[in-house]
Amino acid sequence: MISFSINKTVFLQALNATKRAISSKNAIPILSSLKIEVTSEGITLTGSNGQISIENTITVANENAGLLVTSPGSILLEANFFINIVSSLPDYVLDFEEIEQEQVLLTSGKSEITLKGKSVDHYPRLQEMVTTNPLVLETKLLKTIISETAFAASTQESRPILTGVHLMLTDHQNFKAVATDSHRMSQRKLVLDKATDNFDVVLPSRSLRELSAVFGDDVETIEVFFSDSQVLFRSETISFYTRILEGIYPDTDRLLSSQFETEVVFTTASLRQAMERAQLISNATQNGTVKLEMTSKSVTGHVNSPEVGKVNEEIDTDSINGQDLTISFNPTYLIEALKAIKSEKVTIRFISPVRPFTLTPTDNQEDFIQLITPVRTN
Amino acid sequence: MISFSINKTVFLQALNATKRAISSKNAIPILSSLKIEVTSEGITLTGSNGQISIENTITVANENAGLLVTSPGSILLEANFFINIVSSLPDYVLDFEEIEQEQVLLTSGKSEITLKGKSVDHYPRLQEMVTTNPLVLETKLLKTIISETAFAASTQESRPILTGVHLMLTDHQNFKAVATDSHRMSQRKLVLDKATDNFDVVLPSRSLRELSAVFGDDVETIEVFFSDSQVLFRSETISFYTRILEGIYPDTDRLLSSQFETEVVFTTASLRQAMERAQLISNATQNGTVKLEMTSKSVTGHVNSPEVGKVNEEIDTDSINGQDLTISFNPTYLIEALKAIKSEKVTIRFISPVRPFTLTPTDNQEDFIQLITPVRTN
Repeated sequence: MISFSINKTVFLQALNATKRAISSKNAIPILSSLKIEVTSEGITLTGSNGQISIENTITVANENAGLLVTSPGSILLEANFFINIVSSLPDYVLDFEEIEQEQVLLTSGKSEITLKGKSVDHYPRLQEMVTTNPLVLETKLLKTIISETAFAASTQESRPILTGVHLMLTDHQNFKAVATDSHRMSQRKLVLDKATDNFDVVLPSRSLRELSAVFGDDVETIEVFFSDSQVLFRSETISFYTRILEGIYPDTDRLLSSQFETEVVFTTASLRQAMERAQLISNATQNGTVKLEMTSKSVTGHVNSPEVGKVNEEIDTDSINGQDLTISFNPTYLIEALKAIKSEKVTIRFISPVRPFTLTPTDNQEDFIQLITPVRTN
Repeated sequence: MISFSINKTVFLQALNATKRAISSKNAIPILSSLKIEVTSEGITLTGSNGQISIENTITVANENAGLLVTSPGSILLEANFFINIVSSLPDYVLDFEEIEQEQVLLTSGKSEITLKGKSVDHYPRLQEMVTTNPLVLETKLLKTIISETAFAASTQESRPILTGVHLMLTDHQNFKAVATDSHRMSQRKLVLDKATDNFDVVLPSRSLRELSAVFGDDVETIEVFFSDSQVLFRSETISFYTRILEGIYPDTDRLLSSQFETEVVFTTASLRQAMERAQLISNATQNGTVKLEMTSKSVTGHVNSPEVGKVNEEIDTDSINGQDLTISFNPTYLIEALKAIKSEKVTIRFISPVRPFTLTPTDNQEDFIQLITPVRTN
């Protein structure tokens, strides 16, 4: 029967990270529980929603945690409820004691709270992973790659494979992440410092976004392990499992062409603001598009909604090269693409009014490329 | 045909204050519009949802506004849409020009946005008010009175009069504000510095909460004017109209009794935290109550949910006087009552387990009193 005492703040932080994998509305009722396992070495908290699973460990060696384990054991507690209770406790230390089978007494200051739990017997087991030969990535870089690609994945379940991000390693060092919803695409490349095993997986973009939230900026590197059905991202205290999407990811390389007719360099922020104005009006039009007119002298944006009004504006450019060209597209795609670009300038290359155009950060045209499909108008 | 130029920030601030009266989902479509009236003296913005109306004036005398009126006129514009457009404009100045009948051209930097408007002919007129002999209140005091009472009004439409706050002036100087939802009551008294006309009105608590949001802390005093059907709150630039609720407000004085059997002084914050813990468990019980046990030595709180668990805790007190007493009530009412009390200590007086108990700030037992009805348990 479990018995331990712990610093409330450290415990809450681990509980809140684990909670990200737990949905109170899960179709499988037991998955709304949090699993607490206590050994003489520390506590492991586990949460899962069937798609992702998070294990969070607090060891007795962690001085901030002030963890003192008197007796080991394991129990399931209703996650949301338990976390609310812990965060409401008055003192900075709490005692956690199993007083009867699956019944827990929390003591903190003058508060005594008794909670009913459940046996861990029916909680699903996480699949064991072979944790040798990891891919090691800087947390910051991994989060950047996710923020550059995950938004471009589809949110529609009609083609499930497109709701994922395609992650590949070829020639043991060439890393590539790609996402597309068939209207736009975002691709990030990277050459790894250290050779490692090749891989080719599609991970749910939603899992990757959760991953970015779960690993704090204090975690320097993350180890990544692959199995046939899932991928494990692991730091010293957190193990984050996500399932792999099944299916064949479309070949996106054939979409990229090195040829172009018109090249314009914009200031990322001012192009984005112009598109945000255009979007206010284009949302009220039938096809939701903005028209960009490029001549050798200027780039102008136009939207015309017969019901609501119209926008005409000249957009600041750093340079315009090539043919005059007029193209229409959904400004939302361009806004989201520009949000993913951290560089001050963006280079956009157009082939024709009916062919996709590409965006690259002007200061790095090799590693990060995005593609947006235009809309044919009349 | 209207023509003016104005500082974008000042214009937006006035637009956002006016928008608080405008609902985009109003059953009367024209009320989703904003009315703009321009004269040689300035601009008046008007919004209304039928319950409250707000008029906001920017004069040419306001130097921050940089308002330059070239031609007067009036127009209706879709409020949400227009405000989004204005906030997206690139420059800190905008030109507003009516280029055709009910068609407006906004120019700012290199952006030109044309918007369709409507004629003001069909917009409802605000009822004229006699604005002599105002009641003058400090804005800060008025907002305090609202935050002390409005939350205790009913949110149920079954007895519409209880959704209001009852405001009275008797003997030309004795001000009283009362709200009750029949389970709890909150009453604030005040003696005015300057004698003025008596009044007796019930104003929707929702209107009063909006009022608190509309008048900024830079407004020192507010003038209040009364008519048969509405009340006007007015600062130099803003006029806020709210309708008066019809009906007879119940006599709440008879609920207050000066007799009591048990008096306890608590630290407001620690009692509130104890009740917040109790609430987490009581929400899972059938009657949703917490039980408070008072003896000459201590006050303890208890909740017992057969399904979820239980809470037992001793609550810190400054003093306990009178009979031993055990009483049950909904902790949510006590939490909300304590939130309205700014003083560090609170005095609670009990008569019996079945009679309402009162709360007063320990440092001011005359002006602010609240009452909570207990729940009978078996």
